Amino acid sequence: MHSSSVFSSLPPPKLRLTALYSAPTTDSNSNSMAAASPKWAQKTITLPPLRRGCHLITPKITKELGDDLSQFNCGLAHLFLQHTSASLTINENYDTDVRDDTETFLNNIVPEGNSAPWKHTLEGPDDMPAHIKSSMFGCQLTIPITNGKFNMGTWQGIWLCEHRDYPTARKVVVTLNGI
Amino acid sequence: MHSSSVFSSLPPPKLRLTALYSAPTTDSNSNSMAAASPKWAQKTITLPPLRRGCHLITPKITKELGDDLSQFNCGLAHLFLQHTSASLTINENYDTDVRDDTETFLNNIVPEGNSAPWKHTLEGPDDMPAHIKSSMFGCQLTIPITNGKFNMGTWQGIWLCEHRDYPTARKVVVTLNGI
Amino acid sequence: MHSSSVFSSLPPPKLRLTALYSAPTTDSNSNSMAAASPKWAQKTITLPPLRRGCHLITPKITKELGDDLSQFNCGLAHLFLQHTSASLTINENYDTDVRDDTETFLNNIVPEGNSAPWKHTLEGPDDMPAHIKSSMFGCQLTIPITNGKFNMGTWQGIWLCEHRDYPTARKVVVTLNGI
Repeated sequence: MHSSSVFSSLPPPKLRLTALYSAPTTDSNSNSMAAASPKWAQKTITLPPLRRGCHLITPKITKELGDDLSQFNCGLAHLFLQHTSASLTINENYDTDVRDDTETFLNNIVPEGNSAPWKHTLEGPDDMPAHIKSSMFGCQLTIPITNGKFNMGTWQGIWLCEHRDYPTARKVVVTLNGI
Repeated sequence: MHSSSVFSSLPPPKLRLTALYSAPTTDSNSNSMAAASPKWAQKTITLPPLRRGCHLITPKITKELGDDLSQFNCGLAHLFLQHTSASLTINENYDTDVRDDTETFLNNIVPEGNSAPWKHTLEGPDDMPAHIKSSMFGCQLTIPITNGKFNMGTWQGIWLCEHRDYPTARKVVVTLNGI
Repeated sequence: MHSSSVFSSLPPPKLRLTALYSAPTTDSNSNSMAAASPKWAQKTITLPPLRRGCHLITPKITKELGDDLSQFNCGLAHLFLQHTSASLTINENYDTDVRDDTETFLNNIVPEGNSAPWKHTLEGPDDMPAHIKSSMFGCQLTIPITNGKFNMGTWQGIWLCEHRDYPTARKVVVTLNGI
């Protein structure tokens, strides 16, 4: 950020360009920076039940956020899955084989059934493996926002990984913060 | 967030409702929004030595944060563990078997002892496995704040996973940001 | 944060001390708090191709951020890798054996070659394993900023884990937010 213009706000940043913004100062003669006032938004998105496996949910998330995402020139989007038997991750957004192979990996790495050493089995053989997979991939993501959009790589997408055999609706708390 | 009221602040958000806040404008006639001024808080919490395994630390964290958490209507709490041989994760907050089974999984997945292929063994057989487990689960969490509380799911809790046999006190830098 | 001084700003916090900051109020007579106005900065850092394995990139990241990091007394730095076949993690910053052993672990845990069960193999035997490793360690980190520096533990460093045999340059979007 060596060439950044400190404390300037508009116009919005271009990708790969550097910018350092600030909230408006208390100088009442300087209303021109009001547009850069920090904003917070928060919403709980409910995802319908999805079968066990990995699912690309970027379109659903961006549709639910709608116009509100476009109000942030620079910021962060935080996604928080309120469950312990599913997970959020970012991975390939194109070939569905990648999602299938990831499910295969998770099942190979976390044993299920008679050979599994788990004590916690009350809800079925997929219960404890689901908890473990949830901590392996995690339940939370933070994604940069640039010019009103998620600033992910070309091939990146947001995945909901459902680890239960009998899935239920899943809630994701999305928090947006930026200017 | 289609029905959100843009740039409004109070009253504080209800769960699952949508809200889009902003910091106060520079309009000196509009003091009513001062309550929504962005705040930052930062504290280092020291956890006492905990035996190898997974531990629920939500009560300890919320107690240490005390009244300060309640000052944020909408925001994010960031927890950062300053160590490379322990980890933070979010998982089940009720049945202790889930924590025991997770420790079992970690030990099964990361070999320790004579059969382990590690070069880095100076501090003992649990040293390199601890580093690996730390990267598997990670050392940082971000949790949404809504109405002055962590907005986690009903069954979610914060875990400190101690990966060393002879544990030491562990430091967690907590950063709160919001309005 | 029981002894924190609420809504004060300067002087900047010392490590382990508690502080609760706020953005400037709308009181136009109170210009002294302008220094605590929330700032946002965003930059894309390009890392040169690094061979398959784990690499310490803290020096490169801090050099690229330069003086801009020092402008934040209290805040968060978010690093986002725009790729699905490499990962970011935080681990030991000293002994290179730890990085070698972590690469050994990743290769042991994710099979590659004829015995691997992957459908997605178009780009070679390291393709699908790279995607899996990317989700295991993740593509994003959030690090606290205190007194103008990353507030990591003594032995912590930022790693770029390259999972492909024929690496390419990798882009990291860094977003700074704080006061």
